[in-house]
Amino acid sequence: MVALAAASQYQELAALFTRLYRFRHLGSIVGWDHSAIMPKKGNEARAAALAELGVLMHNLLTDASLKGKLAAAEQEDLKPVERANLREMRRSWESANLLPAKLVEAMSLASSKCEHAWREQRPANDWRGLASNLKEVVRLSREQARLLAAEKSSSPYDALMDQYEPGMTSKKVEAIFADVKTWLPALIAKAQHKQASESVIKPVGPFATEKQKALGLAVMQHLQFDFDGGRLDVSAHPFCGGVPEDVRITTRYREDDFAQSLMGIVHETGHARYEQNLPRHLVDQPVGVARSMGIHESQSLSFEMQLGRSKPFLSLIAPLVREHLGDQPAFSADNLALLYTRVKPGFIRVDADEACYPAHIILRFEIERALIDGEIEVEDIPSLWDEKMTRYLGVETKGNFTDGPMQDIHWPAGLFGYFPSYTLGAMYAAQYFANIRKQHPNLDERIAKGDLAPIFDWLRDNIWSKASELETDELVMQATGEALNPAHFRAHLEARYLS
Amino acid sequence: MVALAAASQYQELAALFTRLYRFRHLGSIVGWDHSAIMPKKGNEARAAALAELGVLMHNLLTDASLKGKLAAAEQEDLKPVERANLREMRRSWESANLLPAKLVEAMSLASSKCEHAWREQRPANDWRGLASNLKEVVRLSREQARLLAAEKSSSPYDALMDQYEPGMTSKKVEAIFADVKTWLPALIAKAQHKQASESVIKPVGPFATEKQKALGLAVMQHLQFDFDGGRLDVSAHPFCGGVPEDVRITTRYREDDFAQSLMGIVHETGHARYEQNLPRHLVDQPVGVARSMGIHESQSLSFEMQLGRSKPFLSLIAPLVREHLGDQPAFSADNLALLYTRVKPGFIRVDADEACYPAHIILRFEIERALIDGEIEVEDIPSLWDEKMTRYLGVETKGNFTDGPMQDIHWPAGLFGYFPSYTLGAMYAAQYFANIRKQHPNLDERIAKGDLAPIFDWLRDNIWSKASELETDELVMQATGEALNPAHFRAHLEARYLS
Repeated sequence: MVALAAASQYQELAALFTRLYRFRHLGSIVGWDHSAIMPKKGNEARAAALAELGVLMHNLLTDASLKGKLAAAEQEDLKPVERANLREMRRSWESANLLPAKLVEAMSLASSKCEHAWREQRPANDWRGLASNLKEVVRLSREQARLLAAEKSSSPYDALMDQYEPGMTSKKVEAIFADVKTWLPALIAKAQHKQASESVIKPVGPFATEKQKALGLAVMQHLQFDFDGGRLDVSAHPFCGGVPEDVRITTRYREDDFAQSLMGIVHETGHARYEQNLPRHLVDQPVGVARSMGIHESQSLSFEMQLGRSKPFLSLIAPLVREHLGDQPAFSADNLALLYTRVKPGFIRVDADEACYPAHIILRFEIERALIDGEIEVEDIPSLWDEKMTRYLGVETKGNFTDGPMQDIHWPAGLFGYFPSYTLGAMYAAQYFANIRKQHPNLDERIAKGDLAPIFDWLRDNIWSKASELETDELVMQATGEALNPAHFRAHLEARYLS
Repeated sequence: MVALAAASQYQELAALFTRLYRFRHLGSIVGWDHSAIMPKKGNEARAAALAELGVLMHNLLTDASLKGKLAAAEQEDLKPVERANLREMRRSWESANLLPAKLVEAMSLASSKCEHAWREQRPANDWRGLASNLKEVVRLSREQARLLAAEKSSSPYDALMDQYEPGMTSKKVEAIFADVKTWLPALIAKAQHKQASESVIKPVGPFATEKQKALGLAVMQHLQFDFDGGRLDVSAHPFCGGVPEDVRITTRYREDDFAQSLMGIVHETGHARYEQNLPRHLVDQPVGVARSMGIHESQSLSFEMQLGRSKPFLSLIAPLVREHLGDQPAFSADNLALLYTRVKPGFIRVDADEACYPAHIILRFEIERALIDGEIEVEDIPSLWDEKMTRYLGVETKGNFTDGPMQDIHWPAGLFGYFPSYTLGAMYAAQYFANIRKQHPNLDERIAKGDLAPIFDWLRDNIWSKASELETDELVMQATGEALNPAHFRAHLEARYLS
């Protein structure tokens, strides 16, 4: 009977996390609505409703009884997956219990307000307007970081990054980025030099939004997105939202350029398939969610960079491009492959090619780390941005806030510590594909024939089905036989751009 | 100090209702999403999330401390609007406290399941499939009705109707409907006879959905829908949802018939403007919500029947119809007025003309009253439906469940007691317009010129701005100088169809 009474502590915790999962469902759908389709006058009431939900969930997760329940459950006789679930429950509990409800609510309100205003401030190049809201978001983020860091004996920034990338530190990231800085500028220069002699045919627009959307949907079909459990819509900043049972991806269309939007859809479809293929019986528990943001990005970048921009994949979808957008010389498979591998430093991170992308991330990482650790202030961002853009990418953004420090949703939304996950994801993705290619030497031929099973099977077996059962390092080790090894990323870039 | 301490009870209640309003926001938006755009695999998780929210709100409203707080607040020195708010708080509290949380949750799950399955069962004419889910919804609705009725010493059905139409009873409704039954069949017959000699030009389709949507948006502009605080989308069954700050109306399009969809949009815009013009400073309190469903329908029917199908309004929008759908003989103002006033008994309530509409309502009222009061069972619905359709409207629906008892969302969604509100609303609307016309003898000329101010000002001053400050009877009395008087409705129908 003792064992039975004790076993119920884990069950009680599981029931609580099921409730939290249901409340998170409401927040996710309403949050998607906020970013994708809400009319502007809804913002104040929406922000208040989401903040109220945040407080509710925070209160549930900070109930005084949980400390004892977690300790008791840890003494119970649990299956491995339950033990992993308990570990993830404790992780959630620790994060929540270090933050007072007032701070959580203030953060939700401030970031909602800042993000919403950003939508109109960005096109208006209104940095001053953004800065006045962003200061409050930064102030609250620092307070958050300070409280989390005190417990974890880490730096404030590391404490925020740990929320997205458990186990990662700015020391490790700095070491990786220091290495990247030694070879990336030369690689970008050499790739540009090599490409200078290639002749690329430019697609001739305009491309009607509706036609682009139909093409995107057709490509999502190839990528096996489940349309009975998800949607494609439009938002200012593309994202993958919703819930695993109903995944909402968004894109944005430019009638003069279909290429970025199409690849954006491929990218978000990678996120979506991870969510859609998480183990359904664990979906309401902490162990059933995606492992980390870096692992999430490794899915979108597996889809976009490893698969999507590869010559065999582009030869597979070239007929679809012609079918939806009309036949033109630019739509040959070879030319699409040239188009999708152009290396050209530019202003916009989300439009950056995969060689320049890490430079955008290094810039943001360096600024946000210094900002959260209190070494700089919001006012310092534009000049640092200009300086680093010039240094890392050789482009000038002075006075162009729209395409400079106002381009991303992350800071207005209070997501500090997230950016490194993008480049970590690119590195994981390169490592996966090195492994998949080893197992399938004929991978490119199979892709070109439309047989994507080697990729999807590998991702399902090694990543999707594992959810959060393993820690990130273990997950990557079991999947590829080695720890995170950035050499695969460098090798991928060299093979694609210099060979 | 006693007064001050006492005064805080009202404030505490107001704070609780603000929280409830925020949670309701989440439920309304997610509920809209469920009906308008959710992919089907999201249903189970969505139902669980909405049920969890329902339980949360129910628990907040059944907290043991509320009984004492309400009693204490009633002794406080309150302004009239606060006293009205307290009356509405007590109404919410009473409804909630008569129902156990388990029943609320079971009802939410059962109706969610039934409504979702109905979406595919209806086109498949699968009455048997619907009936198996509907039985559970009816069983739980009866249980609900029994518990509510015991407290209010009313019949079970009256207890349900009271939720939508406070103060109304089936005895009053039966008296009104008994009167209607004495003159309506003859009016329908005479109108048809009169119209037999009129020659009406049929519009020639197809009308592309996108063009219909653009026309609908243009008409909504004329009706002063605030697009910064709302949207128009598509759903299987048109409705007005969302929240006052972000009103979501839906319609459905048929490419062979633009007329029903367009008038459906006018109808929902009437609901929407009521919501959009509720007093914003009271919007988070019970006194700040719409007075009743009958009053809500009186807004949609003021827009659709009194204004929308009138000759002056149709002459105002005829140029818009031609602009969006192309010029054709059917689109003259006179012909549109003929089209929109055809009297022809048919299967579908939402497509019914305004003369036949009350017959659809009387049929439903008689069936659902008997069903909830336990006099009949779900299995009895089809034969009763057939019999009453034949008796009241002279049409035969045998075996056609799709266009028979499966046509409405109300029963699958567990909304028993709602139907009478439609015809009460039509009667209120006729009474308002009789009053407006008395104040503005030149109303038709002003409408034809696009000057809708006399109508919108009257509705704003007398209905929208009053929200729930007055009881329904008082509201109508103050607005029109008399109690509900169905003679205005009869006079309106006679003037439009027999003169």
